[in-house]
Amino acid sequence: MESSLLDTAAAAASLCAAAGGRRRAGSTASFLSCSCSPRDCRVSASYSRSISRMLSGVRSAARRKLFRADPADLLGVANWPEAGVAGHHQQQHWWAALEHNFVLESTDDEYGGVVVDADRLPADKAAFARSLAASLSYWKSVGKKGVWLKLPVDRAEFVPLAVKEGFKYHHAEESYLMMTYWIPDEPNMLPANASHQVGVGGFVINDQMEVLVVQEKYCGSSLDGVWKLPTGFILASEEIYTGASREVKEETGVDTEFVDVVAFRHAHNVAFQKSDLFFICMLRPVSSEIKIDETEIQAAKWMPLEEFVKQPFIQEDHMFQKIMDICIQCLRKCYCGLTPHHVVSRFDDRTSTLYYNVAEPEDVNCSAT
Amino acid sequence: MESSLLDTAAAAASLCAAAGGRRRAGSTASFLSCSCSPRDCRVSASYSRSISRMLSGVRSAARRKLFRADPADLLGVANWPEAGVAGHHQQQHWWAALEHNFVLESTDDEYGGVVVDADRLPADKAAFARSLAASLSYWKSVGKKGVWLKLPVDRAEFVPLAVKEGFKYHHAEESYLMMTYWIPDEPNMLPANASHQVGVGGFVINDQMEVLVVQEKYCGSSLDGVWKLPTGFILASEEIYTGASREVKEETGVDTEFVDVVAFRHAHNVAFQKSDLFFICMLRPVSSEIKIDETEIQAAKWMPLEEFVKQPFIQEDHMFQKIMDICIQCLRKCYCGLTPHHVVSRFDDRTSTLYYNVAEPEDVNCSAT
Repeated sequence: MESSLLDTAAAAASLCAAAGGRRRAGSTASFLSCSCSPRDCRVSASYSRSISRMLSGVRSAARRKLFRADPADLLGVANWPEAGVAGHHQQQHWWAALEHNFVLESTDDEYGGVVVDADRLPADKAAFARSLAASLSYWKSVGKKGVWLKLPVDRAEFVPLAVKEGFKYHHAEESYLMMTYWIPDEPNMLPANASHQVGVGGFVINDQMEVLVVQEKYCGSSLDGVWKLPTGFILASEEIYTGASREVKEETGVDTEFVDVVAFRHAHNVAFQKSDLFFICMLRPVSSEIKIDETEIQAAKWMPLEEFVKQPFIQEDHMFQKIMDICIQCLRKCYCGLTPHHVVSRFDDRTSTLYYNVAEPEDVNCSAT
Repeated sequence: MESSLLDTAAAAASLCAAAGGRRRAGSTASFLSCSCSPRDCRVSASYSRSISRMLSGVRSAARRKLFRADPADLLGVANWPEAGVAGHHQQQHWWAALEHNFVLESTDDEYGGVVVDADRLPADKAAFARSLAASLSYWKSVGKKGVWLKLPVDRAEFVPLAVKEGFKYHHAEESYLMMTYWIPDEPNMLPANASHQVGVGGFVINDQMEVLVVQEKYCGSSLDGVWKLPTGFILASEEIYTGASREVKEETGVDTEFVDVVAFRHAHNVAFQKSDLFFICMLRPVSSEIKIDETEIQAAKWMPLEEFVKQPFIQEDHMFQKIMDICIQCLRKCYCGLTPHHVVSRFDDRTSTLYYNVAEPEDVNCSAT
């Protein structure tokens, strides 16, 4: 929720009090009605008019927040100028200086934190540096916790300025870098970013008990020359059940229908020190002609299942052996995989896919061990 | 693989040829033995000694690569200086200028790409900017594909320089920003970063058919006041089967043993536009005393299962209802979840966890629909 009007009023009251040499924090005195005494409140008539003019000026009130400070202190002068022509010119000059120290445009999140508006950042480095310092000071004073600062790539020059203020890197995408600042002296509660890459492998077997296999071009020396299942990463926001069929189609040209997830593998420190979830999927072929993707695949073919599992790289590898055992159990109808089902939830207002086991008694009347 | 010695020799040969006005690219002439003709090779004796001195000097040969260019062109002069005192001073000056344009220290990856050594970056912005431009030019000339540039947070000032050269953000962690550059005029084949966050929920039920439930402090208005299963994100490099028990322990103080994964949910655009995998896990309690984590949990208790499932937020929500149906099927032994098994694979030389279905016939002799 934008709190600009309240903050502005609070700041105005603060400035009002500060003009008399005392600072008030957190006051919510109404806009322009000052609760300070005549002695405290040395705000001149032109000062009030300046506030009014500035706040109702071209820049909307929501875009500007007065910095919570004594303006004289802020500007390094002894007194706020008196009324009159000379004083007026000084005031204009000092208002310009004040305007340079606005708090960054932001919204509050549900956890006492602040999300800076990436579309309302100052245009230049100097203004950003000043605003960032001013904003941090303000946010600390009002008890904010986490600060989220999303810097678009065309504001890359702001990155070192934010680091200098104590912001940390959180995550990045091609178009932006997200930085965070945790204010309170307690454990950092800000959520982490994505931690896993997700891959899929397709076990595609036809009525002749032949499995669809590929030889990759870039596979590392340990897999050089072996025939393996088609595998790949799912795309951003892609379903596992569509990703598996897509990968098989891209690599081999074969169309398939998704049957179920038969198992998944969880590994750590795989790439960029992140973790990896790999879903082994049973797919039913609905075409047979092979056409490979030559950028990644050396060759593809339908290979007799027996020949496939007899390859040394499977026979000599604990994990591959186990995966093939599971796939063969599936073929014998002695296994319950997890099938995808669309579900809707009110709690986060979205449709998602729930994978679970749906078995008929006649499908599981033998041991799967 | 570091190619500094080859590159150095090649560059030396190139300079050698270039001194005669012709450039040779990709030559692998052995170190200091120049294959150019006397006419081509106007390398003075002092020039050779300079190369030798520099390459065997304090900085190791592996740390410096001579820029592939005509030094005279590079320095904007007509001729490389002749031997003699005056020429020597000029050479010293020009060697210093040459040294300012070195290719960044890097290693080759398996895919025709380059990984810049983050521990060998130049110390200042100007040197980095020059080296980066020189490096890109060199990598393009030798047909490199992807460039990985990891900038530690204490080199934040290099970020805008890299953006200016055309590097893109790839991902970031607290201590660094990874940037990439895809050189060839073909689809970018660089792998993406992690795309999913992973959460776990623990279904813990005791012998009295009471389920362990919590009320959270910060849950959003739609879940305000409801009793839910303990849930949370797994930590970096944490196993699902330990993460589930840890979350239950942290939130409620109850110790549990992991039984199996009964289902998982896949959702998209959840946080930072990334996807979410949530694993519903069956856990067996091995203690009963409750002690909540007051930073996140309002209250926790053992609730009769019937009362738990009758809550409106479950009755009125398609997804929660389905999850509870599955959990109840598990209790009735009419369900096969996925159990974790350690497996080792030679293909990536690591231990990982394979989750699959291990069922005994007597456990699955009823319909799970």
